Amino acid sequence: MSLKGSSGRCIFNTELALRDARVVIVGLGLMGGSLAKALLERSLCREVVGVARRAETVREAMAWGVAHRATIDLAEGVAGADVIVLATPVRTILRQIRQLAAMPLDPCVLLDLGSTKNDVVAAMEELPSHVQPVGVHPMCGKEMAGLAAAEPTLYDGAPWVLVPTPRTSPQALALARELGVAVGGRPIVIDADRHDRMVAAVSHLPYSLAIALILTVAEIGAEDELVWKLAASGFRDTSRLAASDVRMMVDILLTNRAAVSDVLRQARAHLDHLADLLDAGDEDHLRALLVSAYDQRAPMFQLDNRG
Amino acid sequence: MSLKGSSGRCIFNTELALRDARVVIVGLGLMGGSLAKALLERSLCREVVGVARRAETVREAMAWGVAHRATIDLAEGVAGADVIVLATPVRTILRQIRQLAAMPLDPCVLLDLGSTKNDVVAAMEELPSHVQPVGVHPMCGKEMAGLAAAEPTLYDGAPWVLVPTPRTSPQALALARELGVAVGGRPIVIDADRHDRMVAAVSHLPYSLAIALILTVAEIGAEDELVWKLAASGFRDTSRLAASDVRMMVDILLTNRAAVSDVLRQARAHLDHLADLLDAGDEDHLRALLVSAYDQRAPMFQLDNRG
Repeated sequence: MSLKGSSGRCIFNTELALRDARVVIVGLGLMGGSLAKALLERSLCREVVGVARRAETVREAMAWGVAHRATIDLAEGVAGADVIVLATPVRTILRQIRQLAAMPLDPCVLLDLGSTKNDVVAAMEELPSHVQPVGVHPMCGKEMAGLAAAEPTLYDGAPWVLVPTPRTSPQALALARELGVAVGGRPIVIDADRHDRMVAAVSHLPYSLAIALILTVAEIGAEDELVWKLAASGFRDTSRLAASDVRMMVDILLTNRAAVSDVLRQARAHLDHLADLLDAGDEDHLRALLVSAYDQRAPMFQLDNRG
Repeated sequence: MSLKGSSGRCIFNTELALRDARVVIVGLGLMGGSLAKALLERSLCREVVGVARRAETVREAMAWGVAHRATIDLAEGVAGADVIVLATPVRTILRQIRQLAAMPLDPCVLLDLGSTKNDVVAAMEELPSHVQPVGVHPMCGKEMAGLAAAEPTLYDGAPWVLVPTPRTSPQALALARELGVAVGGRPIVIDADRHDRMVAAVSHLPYSLAIALILTVAEIGAEDELVWKLAASGFRDTSRLAASDVRMMVDILLTNRAAVSDVLRQARAHLDHLADLLDAGDEDHLRALLVSAYDQRAPMFQLDNRG
């Protein structure tokens, strides 16, 4: 049931269910494309509309049946939307929120899938009251980017982190949760600041360590190319995140600078400690350190290899 | 053809072929067990004998058909060996070389599969002249240890690094190469010092970064357990090496202290630089750094995701 407010606009429809919604996904890369595929293939909503930066992506989306329709025009795409999902790099999300705030939107729920949340949630405060914002961070991905890499099962089993803003209504939060569950995610509600500190540790730090690893090996490789030939699966896995989309990662790191700086300092302290133990040949403390790391990781992935 | 030397001992048989050899594998963990399985299942040699630390492993080796026979007694196991392969942790290898040097061995080739080579090659110099040493480092593995994790395909496609000592004969090197090729490895011959510097970068540094990652996340997890729930595939892969066998890794790090210390310092300098760029909000140099790492890794694993 929709109600007309005194402004003449529809007040947010508290009974909106996902299955009745026109969902507009802005950004048809890995994340947006996978969401569109999951929604369309499983008939989870009334209509899936895609908005892409490039005409070629629009053509691919239509040819591959990723959306009911698609466009490169943001205003055209979001017209009549019940749910808008911003699935672009974080600083593009910030710009698109400002653009949407200036458009004559119908009442709707606006989600973003950005990997950092403080800046996004702050920008969402500028939206008109009939646009209900909810921050979302699906904690999944792979090193391939783009619509061609999208798959409807991407979100299966992954944390679907919900970050309400101070003005997010319970109804909007419920819809964002319903969407996550529908595509297989595991909803977790946390605030933006806590989110950004957590992902600095489990996501941006691993990326930074992968970068440092590659740059170190490259320095050695500049003098002795053999080093690349000796790189085995351990090196491949530890450096995998360095193959992440650079444009996306620049946005992520620059919108989470303080928290990433903090965890980089912490990690460097642990590397210093490790180097000190090696320099001193301190076997007992070295073993204790390695066992401690082993033991703290083991419960997550159920290994028992301490030896 | 065997020749008797003036000492009454057989001089190393220059015509020894792998298919005629009794191969004694000391250490039936992941590496030794996989080698035994590959040799036995593919009938690559005359006889496979296993030597294990624990009676239980001997029973498992026989029950699972990993070797023709097995024992916990080193002297009994190596009697009549044509080829001895030490597949134990590095410092155990060093001790076993000393033990073997004091035993009345027949002429044979002695290989080790240790992950560091300077100390091993130095210890091999003490062997009697009819025991022909060759250092070997098969660059493969997985995070599971022990005979149960062994598989005959472990060496397929992996670098089989051959590290001759000053006294390694061409015949002994040829046999060590033949063994590597027979189990699917790709032979590369380098000296011990170069080997140890290379593996410090591509193997021991990734392990150290994984340790630092786990310890940093654990610090944060001590205050907010949620961090473990948000850890996704990127964290899992980057931290995977922290699940390596600790006893093996202590030996590796302690026998390659100087080279590991060097690469830890290099990696820390890159992390410092990254943190500085973030603190300064220096987008141009940050992007250049990430692109550089991306570009230098890409040729190895054929990705194109720079965005």
